[in-house]
Amino acid sequence: MNLSLLMDLYELTMVAGYLREGKQDEPAAFDLSFRRNPFEGGYAIFAGLDPALDYLENLQFGAEELRYFESLDLFEDAALEWLRDFRFRGKVTAAAEGEVVFAHEPLLTVEGGLAETQLVETALLNMINFQTLIATKAARVALEADANAVVEFGARRAHGPDGALSASRAARIGGARATSNLLAGQAFGLPVAGTQAHAWIMAFPDELAAFRAYAAAFPKSCILLVDTYDTLRSGLPHAIEVATELRAQGHELRGIRLDSGDLAYLSREARRLLDDAGFPDVKILASNDLDEHVVASIRQEGGRIDVYGVGTRLVTAAGDRGGALGGVYKLVELGGRPRIKVSADRHKSTIPGRKKVWRLSETDDERHFALDVITAAGAAPESGHRVYDPTNPIRWTVVDAGLLVEDVRSVVMEEGKRVHAAKSLDDIAAYAQAQLARLPEGCQRLLNPHVYRVSLSAELHALREALIEAATAALPSPANGNGR
Amino acid sequence: MNLSLLMDLYELTMVAGYLREGKQDEPAAFDLSFRRNPFEGGYAIFAGLDPALDYLENLQFGAEELRYFESLDLFEDAALEWLRDFRFRGKVTAAAEGEVVFAHEPLLTVEGGLAETQLVETALLNMINFQTLIATKAARVALEADANAVVEFGARRAHGPDGALSASRAARIGGARATSNLLAGQAFGLPVAGTQAHAWIMAFPDELAAFRAYAAAFPKSCILLVDTYDTLRSGLPHAIEVATELRAQGHELRGIRLDSGDLAYLSREARRLLDDAGFPDVKILASNDLDEHVVASIRQEGGRIDVYGVGTRLVTAAGDRGGALGGVYKLVELGGRPRIKVSADRHKSTIPGRKKVWRLSETDDERHFALDVITAAGAAPESGHRVYDPTNPIRWTVVDAGLLVEDVRSVVMEEGKRVHAAKSLDDIAAYAQAQLARLPEGCQRLLNPHVYRVSLSAELHALREALIEAATAALPSPANGNGR
Repeated sequence: MNLSLLMDLYELTMVAGYLREGKQDEPAAFDLSFRRNPFEGGYAIFAGLDPALDYLENLQFGAEELRYFESLDLFEDAALEWLRDFRFRGKVTAAAEGEVVFAHEPLLTVEGGLAETQLVETALLNMINFQTLIATKAARVALEADANAVVEFGARRAHGPDGALSASRAARIGGARATSNLLAGQAFGLPVAGTQAHAWIMAFPDELAAFRAYAAAFPKSCILLVDTYDTLRSGLPHAIEVATELRAQGHELRGIRLDSGDLAYLSREARRLLDDAGFPDVKILASNDLDEHVVASIRQEGGRIDVYGVGTRLVTAAGDRGGALGGVYKLVELGGRPRIKVSADRHKSTIPGRKKVWRLSETDDERHFALDVITAAGAAPESGHRVYDPTNPIRWTVVDAGLLVEDVRSVVMEEGKRVHAAKSLDDIAAYAQAQLARLPEGCQRLLNPHVYRVSLSAELHALREALIEAATAALPSPANGNGR
Repeated sequence: MNLSLLMDLYELTMVAGYLREGKQDEPAAFDLSFRRNPFEGGYAIFAGLDPALDYLENLQFGAEELRYFESLDLFEDAALEWLRDFRFRGKVTAAAEGEVVFAHEPLLTVEGGLAETQLVETALLNMINFQTLIATKAARVALEADANAVVEFGARRAHGPDGALSASRAARIGGARATSNLLAGQAFGLPVAGTQAHAWIMAFPDELAAFRAYAAAFPKSCILLVDTYDTLRSGLPHAIEVATELRAQGHELRGIRLDSGDLAYLSREARRLLDDAGFPDVKILASNDLDEHVVASIRQEGGRIDVYGVGTRLVTAAGDRGGALGGVYKLVELGGRPRIKVSADRHKSTIPGRKKVWRLSETDDERHFALDVITAAGAAPESGHRVYDPTNPIRWTVVDAGLLVEDVRSVVMEEGKRVHAAKSLDDIAAYAQAQLARLPEGCQRLLNPHVYRVSLSAELHALREALIEAATAALPSPANGNGR
């Protein structure tokens, strides 16, 4: 898929305008961040970086795109020429893919000329918003499933072909072990999983015949869907019969799949029936509108599910504050001067200037996160100094001495080229798991999680306040009518 | 994007199993339908058909895909050979794209050999579920906006690049007039719209300078974003100043855009200020987390918005029963015999057999829909006969005499080839609008809409009941413990 036109028209009109004003090369920095953690949760998993860097590295406009630009009848020749010669040559500083991140932190900073850094806004937001959202959802499900596997089954309900493909990638980063989607299996080397649909069972004279046929076709990897007629009265007895026949041929039934009904109850009963029949190693898979809340509830009731097949609610990020991540891409510096976008709600104003994101951790064995501090680019957090909540500066704290200090982000692209080779998805997923284990207690809770503290250094807080004052001081006094 | 691998692994394992059993060419029919209207609404707009037919017409497996299948180490040579030679040669009967459709109706029936019809399940569901969902959401927004335009602005929050592209297409079908997304503009010939971001305003010494620069670059199509500092105290006065300057040069300011705050109030005030200054033709655009409910509320309060820019909540189908359409693809006939998938909840069982969907309409000028009746393939609704609610057969009605009768669906593909050329998106959108106008009163209501009646003919109802009986009669009696 050629993504070079994945942009909003306004990026192009702004670029054309900047060219006309001679501003296209003014050194600019944009931050990509979000204001609230998804799912009313305690964290997010940063994902989508590798596709975003791929996009930046390859972005150029061919003859077809240039003809399209011309056809819009909006752009002067100078703009069309600039677009013809365009390559992204900027610098990108970003968190590692798979990093645990929080609201208000610049996940990514893009530096370069004003025109090139503006041009890539929509594509970067599109990829990072979606994949971060899905990786976070997958992490939430996988944390509730604990040692049990989560497999992503969402292609049929995803938002289009790539809504499925990108979701499979992001789900792996968040902790899904496999996907049902062959497109993702091939594209990303993910393990693929799947057995048979109800249609298979219905295509035979009866359930037992259908089970036998499937076992004959796949004796080494046979998983049987047991709910077509009645899970406990029909599916389980027939599955046990086929498991016995398979064993006589030197094979073991791999598993059964529950796809409807009371999964906590049915899985306990299925486990008991399988164990009693001498099949303690047959796995129990379950699917049917699962998400982190359903998984938690099944486990709380002693459900005996080994593999959770999670589809619709994972790939569409269903749930409170789900569906979309509201990431934004904001100009924070231009011509070496910090810029701010003020908001009527003062502390929704952007955080100005080029910055560093510091993670301060405990010195315990697990190196639990203690506090993230955002400072200006040239600064670092200092113990004993105050730091301020970005949405409510009445909440401040003092940086403890003796914490470990890490720079959360690093330079990942220079002059439009990646600094490092892409990491494997397995490595990214392992990193995400390692970082999740460092979250303080309560941050992973589904309901009312602990709010991890992300703060601004005193200097950055003061700069922001000063710029808010300067931006609003010149405005005329508002009228008092209507309580406004 | 090569979509040939957009399938779940289980489709391939089933195909391999059917080949082993010699069942691959058994004549089969699958229905694609959904069980509940999205958004707790009164209807859905069928979309995604053209991409689905495109997929079916072009589906084949190249060397790379075949190597991938082989690498899975699951398939015998016979299966790999079948896949190598595969082309879809089935028949598709479907509603027209843009048709108003309802829960329980087979939107699409795929007939052909059991293997080929099973193989395409996930891709068809993926495309039709998503585009139907978004077209329906767009129709809901456009109906509330009434004569005012809706423009789709969602690319940055969509579910990946194609989540944006497919959404732009579907939004046009539902009634959006333009998109901000150039990828969709080029791919589908959609009008594109957009102006400038806050970054443009912040890139100049002050708001007036930013407005003047934009007006100089785009004097004929200038729309100004007025909320960067303060909409009424700063943005509007500056926009009026620039409008006056433009007029002196022989141009007219096209519009202003509101992007935050109380849009009903601000649009009324903006209209008043613009009118008083002599600019009654300057349009007012608004954006910021809009959806059908917000649009309805703005209009109820006398808001004066001419163009609604609708993004995140449109392209992610936010809202109750949003996020995903739960379409399913079920085997309804095999070897000439109707098949059923029973459910513990009896009336969630599938509707067996090949069918016709009939729309019965009033003979008034608008030809308002009266009732949809699903019959067996060879039958038609008869006036004076009973028809039954598919989820609750206690609810039946008698078909009135004198209604107009239309067959909702037609054959759109024969032997794997389209029967007709693809229609233009404008034509599809116009058809959707025309059909929406035929909905009975109350079906378009946002809250507790009138439930349009979709019924089964007496014969089809009886067939379903008989098959449910047959499928469950052979099961052993359940135990009584635990209230189960």
